[in-house]
Amino acid sequence: MLTQKPTVRYIPYEKATGIVREVYDDIMATKGIASVPNFWRALAVNPEHLRATWQKLKQTMAAGTLDPLTKELIAIAVSVTNGCAYCINSHTASAVKLGMDTAMFSEVLAVVDVFNGTNRLANGYQVDVDFYPEVPPPAVQS
Amino acid sequence: MLTQKPTVRYIPYEKATGIVREVYDDIMATKGIASVPNFWRALAVNPEHLRATWQKLKQTMAAGTLDPLTKELIAIAVSVTNGCAYCINSHTASAVKLGMDTAMFSEVLAVVDVFNGTNRLANGYQVDVDFYPEVPPPAVQS
Amino acid sequence: MLTQKPTVRYIPYEKATGIVREVYDDIMATKGIASVPNFWRALAVNPEHLRATWQKLKQTMAAGTLDPLTKELIAIAVSVTNGCAYCINSHTASAVKLGMDTAMFSEVLAVVDVFNGTNRLANGYQVDVDFYPEVPPPAVQS
Amino acid sequence: MLTQKPTVRYIPYEKATGIVREVYDDIMATKGIASVPNFWRALAVNPEHLRATWQKLKQTMAAGTLDPLTKELIAIAVSVTNGCAYCINSHTASAVKLGMDTAMFSEVLAVVDVFNGTNRLANGYQVDVDFYPEVPPPAVQS
Amino acid sequence: MLTQKPTVRYIPYEKATGIVREVYDDIMATKGIASVPNFWRALAVNPEHLRATWQKLKQTMAAGTLDPLTKELIAIAVSVTNGCAYCINSHTASAVKLGMDTAMFSEVLAVVDVFNGTNRLANGYQVDVDFYPEVPPPAVQS
Amino acid sequence: MLTQKPTVRYIPYEKATGIVREVYDDIMATKGIASVPNFWRALAVNPEHLRATWQKLKQTMAAGTLDPLTKELIAIAVSVTNGCAYCINSHTASAVKLGMDTAMFSEVLAVVDVFNGTNRLANGYQVDVDFYPEVPPPAVQS
Repeated sequence: MLTQKPTVRYIPYEKATGIVREVYDDIMATKGIASVPNFWRALAVNPEHLRATWQKLKQTMAAGTLDPLTKELIAIAVSVTNGCAYCINSHTASAVKLGMDTAMFSEVLAVVDVFNGTNRLANGYQVDVDFYPEVPPPAVQS
Repeated sequence: MLTQKPTVRYIPYEKATGIVREVYDDIMATKGIASVPNFWRALAVNPEHLRATWQKLKQTMAAGTLDPLTKELIAIAVSVTNGCAYCINSHTASAVKLGMDTAMFSEVLAVVDVFNGTNRLANGYQVDVDFYPEVPPPAVQS
Repeated sequence: MLTQKPTVRYIPYEKATGIVREVYDDIMATKGIASVPNFWRALAVNPEHLRATWQKLKQTMAAGTLDPLTKELIAIAVSVTNGCAYCINSHTASAVKLGMDTAMFSEVLAVVDVFNGTNRLANGYQVDVDFYPEVPPPAVQS
Repeated sequence: MLTQKPTVRYIPYEKATGIVREVYDDIMATKGIASVPNFWRALAVNPEHLRATWQKLKQTMAAGTLDPLTKELIAIAVSVTNGCAYCINSHTASAVKLGMDTAMFSEVLAVVDVFNGTNRLANGYQVDVDFYPEVPPPAVQS
Repeated sequence: MLTQKPTVRYIPYEKATGIVREVYDDIMATKGIASVPNFWRALAVNPEHLRATWQKLKQTMAAGTLDPLTKELIAIAVSVTNGCAYCINSHTASAVKLGMDTAMFSEVLAVVDVFNGTNRLANGYQVDVDFYPEVPPPAVQS
Repeated sequence: MLTQKPTVRYIPYEKATGIVREVYDDIMATKGIASVPNFWRALAVNPEHLRATWQKLKQTMAAGTLDPLTKELIAIAVSVTNGCAYCINSHTASAVKLGMDTAMFSEVLAVVDVFNGTNRLANGYQVDVDFYPEVPPPAVQS
């Protein structure tokens, strides 16, 4: 049988004070959700780490050159490659909220499938790099 | 010192016959390039595997619900997570051709950074899944 | 507690039509089984990807220079290295069908154990490659 | 530019004494080689770890139910999945000595390719395990 | 639903003889525990591999330059990076016995989080190594 | 042959302004070094990401319940498990500055070796978790 129990005791919203309460409120406001996901309630055992993680994630996932849905698709690709079940479920849920349907999801997984394979072929054949790209600066640099 | 040598001898275009020649021609035509990348010249030692790999990759990377650039960004995310240098270079080059600039590239890497981290936090705290998404079918299913 | 739910709805055999039905029939005929495994019923949400994946896998696992049991042992080694529970169970089941017993299985796992360790020692000590093998062509090349 | 330097100073054969000398002699005798590979010369900075690693590896790679070539193919599969260049080169060289040709090698890589892909599909779709194999004991147990 | 079943039948203490019984006794004596963990009861299907694995692990985890708690923290970091649930639970339990509290545990996970991220940034940007450390020998070498 | 080139153009100190210049100055001051490592000069193509990454890393690596050397050893363990050469070199260099010698380094690598192996054995045998630790709160909670 397989059961799972968290290795720490979650900090519930009612017991959250100071930094933790502030972060919890910001998470719910930013994501438009009514309760704090277990992930953040676990991280709260270390308030400074909770805050730094949330702030970096929030900044990273905000709309930039890439839209939020594209970022969630990339988050799914990473989580699937690493095999993190919690993360696959949570990013899939977020992407669905942003409009991902089965056609899109299955295309993401097909790309992840193909390149997890070819990554190993490049390793196994020890293929020499053909050319070295230099990513160009944005059209107008600030 | 670090040098690298492929573990097999590449099959050059001039020596390619049958299936291999067909695949080589299709790769160059599809990608609009004038020579066959080393990756495919290595895979050519096994013509059936070369063909199946190319055909699946070609089909997967064609425009679908996701556009080709988004697919290349996901390919970068996978290759970066796995640490495959050949693949990082080649997918970065392809994405640049499709319009990726430094702003976009650095956002992809920021997302990859954040979620490679949080994947491990979910593991370490053994966080329980909060909810189980079911990805909805496309609006109009064919 | 840990439960798991698939992120898409499986396509049951009775509802499968066209490409999906053809692939389902070929899977059952090729493997000599009476029902379609969950893995393929999930992939069926994307019929083209289902077909390309099945055809490449079928071709790859057919007897070649390596026999099917050896190929399943390698599939176990990959799945164990990546930690994919579904895959470990399914390839172990396939290998048992082909004659794998506990002696053989435990030797596979011992090899996987040792080299997952030594791979990291080579990384940590940043060991220089001693020699660069070139894999020879088959005795008689076709 | 990319160069690589080991993080420790190798222990050359001439300076090896005690445990290290014994292990070096056993490595060369067992493998039928005239010099000690860099890998072992790096591990020698910790003689007890060198000995335990060598003895476990030697025991694991000796002929058992699986023959040495099959074990090397599995070692290649692990090293390719993990992307360890030193290890890919060294296990490929060992397998070539034991008779691996390009046909066999490319089949190993094809299997590694396919299942590194499907491992992620099983993750992404969060596929339920269909059945739980129990590997049977050897025909005659000792 | 997700359940898990071991792929082999554990060898219980009462049925253990010879090498297996000796190792079981040594495990319980060394760890000061009253029963044999499932991990070792699974490995016992291959007595020689059981012994080599236990002896190398016992030697590696004994106090050396690093104390046993630090070694368990490193074991947690490895297991979390690889996503092995059994191992995360068992090394966390061992570290708790040796005095790890939530402050320490959350700092380990924070470090694991940060560097799983930055490892990918170094990959993605293909950053050149700045300098090549050579780890110095111990002050007084034996 | 293997060469490597960064995928973006580093931002040199002289051209750094605003956020980038501030972060560069803080990196050099905090680490007591006279130039900015390539890693940070690459990240500078995205100033916001540079700042968030540096601030989180700086906070995480500061002395807490764990001392900075222990944190660097964990960083080495993560980087070695992932096979990131840049990171292995840079964390090894940092740990050497903090007092790590070959005895300590080789013990870290021995632990990383052993548990990268046993992680896969737990996967392969699909071992059931024996007990579920709950990490205790610090003696005096703030």
